[in-house]
Amino acid sequence: MNWVDEVNWNEQGLVPAIAQEVNSGKVLMVAWMNRQALASTAETGKATYWSRSRQKLWRKGEQSGHEQIVRELRIDCDNDVILMQVEQKGGIACHTGRQSCFFQRLEGDKWVVVDPQLKDPAAIYKL
Amino acid sequence: MNWVDEVNWNEQGLVPAIAQEVNSGKVLMVAWMNRQALASTAETGKATYWSRSRQKLWRKGEQSGHEQIVRELRIDCDNDVILMQVEQKGGIACHTGRQSCFFQRLEGDKWVVVDPQLKDPAAIYKL
Repeated sequence: MNWVDEVNWNEQGLVPAIAQEVNSGKVLMVAWMNRQALASTAETGKATYWSRSRQKLWRKGEQSGHEQIVRELRIDCDNDVILMQVEQKGGIACHTGRQSCFFQRLEGDKWVVVDPQLKDPAAIYKL
Repeated sequence: MNWVDEVNWNEQGLVPAIAQEVNSGKVLMVAWMNRQALASTAETGKATYWSRSRQKLWRKGEQSGHEQIVRELRIDCDNDVILMQVEQKGGIACHTGRQSCFFQRLEGDKWVVVDPQLKDPAAIYKL
């Protein structure tokens, strides 16, 4: 597919992808995609990433139910970052049970947790 | 500085940093920071990146005047992505003269330019 070839894949064949909540504009998370993950995201309309730690495709929400329905896919001027507008199922993107993975804010010289846990991770991942 | 040490720097000593416009929530750009760039960003309150192509520190706007005044710094749950809330001077983040670098949208099987150029790049970078 031509549009997949137009991505400037890095030396590992990956590109970072940002998931932004379509209604609130909140940046939820950043993860990585390979060619298959990006193609699958576009085909299924569900955000699919490449897990570098597990070295496998990872459809977001496959365990947690917290799927991301993709409303729009964009790419930046260098063709090396993807930006998705998503509908976040369950209102939780982070494996810690928070809405967004960006829950630590720099205050003076410390990273401080500033967003609440909405759900116990143990309750999210029991299967 | 401890808070800089808490970042999970990649093998090149870099971390991706997202600049999000504080009022609109628009994602403006993603670039890379090394330790010095991140520390300088926090100290000066102006977004400073590491240019991989030029291999030097790059204070955003040093040539274009399009500085990013940093209102908030966050880090994600893996400590490997930075999210900044910024005030974008001149309303233009992209070197192409657009508000955001994410001006190409996937439509069917094509990336289509969907956002207007606000300024001619030749006019931005004449110095």
